[in-house]
Amino acid sequence: MKYINSTPLKDGYRMPGEFESHDGCWMLWPERTDNWRDGAKPAQKAFTAVAKAIARFEKLTMGVSASQFTHARHRLPPQIRVVEMSYNDSWIRDCGPTCVVNEGGDVRGVDWDFNAWGGLTGGLYFPWDLDNLVAQKVCDIEDMDAYKAPMVLEGGSIHTDGQGTLLTTEECLLNPNRNPSMSKKDIEDVLKRYLNVCKIIWLPKGIYMDETDGHVDNICCFARPGEVILSWTDDTSDPQYSRSLAAKEILENTDDARGRKLKIHLLHQPDPVLITRDESEGVDTVEGTLPRLPGDRLAASYVNFYIANYGIVMPVFEDTHDKAAVEKMKKIFPEREIIPVPAREILLGGGNIHCITQQIPKRIKT
Amino acid sequence: MKYINSTPLKDGYRMPGEFESHDGCWMLWPERTDNWRDGAKPAQKAFTAVAKAIARFEKLTMGVSASQFTHARHRLPPQIRVVEMSYNDSWIRDCGPTCVVNEGGDVRGVDWDFNAWGGLTGGLYFPWDLDNLVAQKVCDIEDMDAYKAPMVLEGGSIHTDGQGTLLTTEECLLNPNRNPSMSKKDIEDVLKRYLNVCKIIWLPKGIYMDETDGHVDNICCFARPGEVILSWTDDTSDPQYSRSLAAKEILENTDDARGRKLKIHLLHQPDPVLITRDESEGVDTVEGTLPRLPGDRLAASYVNFYIANYGIVMPVFEDTHDKAAVEKMKKIFPEREIIPVPAREILLGGGNIHCITQQIPKRIKT
Repeated sequence: MKYINSTPLKDGYRMPGEFESHDGCWMLWPERTDNWRDGAKPAQKAFTAVAKAIARFEKLTMGVSASQFTHARHRLPPQIRVVEMSYNDSWIRDCGPTCVVNEGGDVRGVDWDFNAWGGLTGGLYFPWDLDNLVAQKVCDIEDMDAYKAPMVLEGGSIHTDGQGTLLTTEECLLNPNRNPSMSKKDIEDVLKRYLNVCKIIWLPKGIYMDETDGHVDNICCFARPGEVILSWTDDTSDPQYSRSLAAKEILENTDDARGRKLKIHLLHQPDPVLITRDESEGVDTVEGTLPRLPGDRLAASYVNFYIANYGIVMPVFEDTHDKAAVEKMKKIFPEREIIPVPAREILLGGGNIHCITQQIPKRIKT
Repeated sequence: MKYINSTPLKDGYRMPGEFESHDGCWMLWPERTDNWRDGAKPAQKAFTAVAKAIARFEKLTMGVSASQFTHARHRLPPQIRVVEMSYNDSWIRDCGPTCVVNEGGDVRGVDWDFNAWGGLTGGLYFPWDLDNLVAQKVCDIEDMDAYKAPMVLEGGSIHTDGQGTLLTTEECLLNPNRNPSMSKKDIEDVLKRYLNVCKIIWLPKGIYMDETDGHVDNICCFARPGEVILSWTDDTSDPQYSRSLAAKEILENTDDARGRKLKIHLLHQPDPVLITRDESEGVDTVEGTLPRLPGDRLAASYVNFYIANYGIVMPVFEDTHDKAAVEKMKKIFPEREIIPVPAREILLGGGNIHCITQQIPKRIKT
């Protein structure tokens, strides 16, 4: 692969919506015992369930370290491709490539700088050197050339409708621990040039207690052009309430890039999910890695789902709101099969199904 | 990928000749400093030259460890795909998959047991656990299913004409450090079932001092069905003379699988290549790895070349025989471009261009 010294905007490439057709999806096997409890074995089971669910709809490639290769290959069914890769943790949404496509069906990667959600001032672990190579490695295996974007950004902090509109949060993209020397306008300029969008919708904040500094993919996403899904709570005493309300007000009063009013689907969040003592004690204590303390609230949201070809793989939490969330998703996506996957073990690591997946758009082979 | 519980013979798959069309070629970046002198840097240059030459004709994928990934990616041109992989050393001919094809253009791998050319009785290093996973990893990345063959075998110890004939050596395949419990007939039986051949031509020995126990790919190969190339010397006092003569007599008196007499091209070897003191001293001394001692003779041969689509990448040694060897190769392969590559640094590691390459046959996508 090569890095192209140009921009997607100049070359006529755009970031498609996740709901557009895929060639496949990538994940990274969870391993680090200072983030995933009990030797990462419960997380590996949960990731396996997600991978199997996605593989019903599209090709799934799992990156795995040399030391876990044989184990992962045995745990995963043969239709899942297992590829050796080194990385610091399993959040390929954030360290993997953001793919852009052109009219001819060619796909290229955008390789952002990655600093583990905040570098030395708020980052979640150190070092993150291997994560920072994941985008390049995925592009090479997938035979895609790439653009090196001049900015720190995680894939989970952006969503697009594929038609010129981008969704993001100020809490994350304007956080000084990402790009302290860039103004909001500078950041918008890079987003426009590297994703080929012209309208950026800034939500103020993400989900309460989200350690990513409020990634948009945990609070709001596009179901299709002109329609968004927002994580919601009716409990006005919940710290999430004001956050979701502020987002709703922005969304109600914004046109998208094509001048449409947005249709807003509210997806009620689960009850607060707290880390148990047993869960906390299963995680290795390591200096420099965010600890997992008993009683800490996790940033649980049903919006952190993955859209596959003809399917949706969504997190559920053994919560009283699960059933309503799945039913609502079926109504929003009548054209797709909804697969709920128990995701507490993923959430315990700091993210959810969308955070551990990264789609490769459909290529038209010439 | 999955392992198929059957055999290529049963399923109608055969090992094609190397001269048939390829989808591409794999190599592994040299790194271990107890085999490659001066921190493996001279070998990396030589491998880079081979990779660039092959990439003129077909897609070239270079496997490289996590620690050398960035360096290799910078050294290799963008048209070469670089993929992270762990391995014990760089001999993908021997530890990679042997590919088999069917009439419909589907390709599968054959994954042999690998024991580093002799295991605990004559093997060249310890351990070899990572090498033994290379075939599976290549198959997974290439989206090929595979057969697990019940035998120790290295790809460099076999050549086929793609029409039912296999070339090998008794020195290697009957060596008790490979499959001590198997008779010659047992071994023939596995070769027939896993490569779909019906006629096995047994040459007695390979090249003098070849540490692989006489791999056939250093002494003799098929140019096309019915034609072989044999490494030769006119010097009757050279220990190689009797070896090449014995092979020639076998080849002259054998029909191939289709009942043809073989046309034999003799390719005169270079003068003896000896390890210099300086070269020896550049190699780390490690218990359990074959040492590289000053004055040791290397198993130099021009036959250890790689056949690419429309091209041949062949080793040369700054030797007086180089020119004649290249001219002869041009006559044998008028349909291909002959690219000579200086290969002393590869030879110093114990093999040559054919040993560090592994082709993936052309697939017909359905």
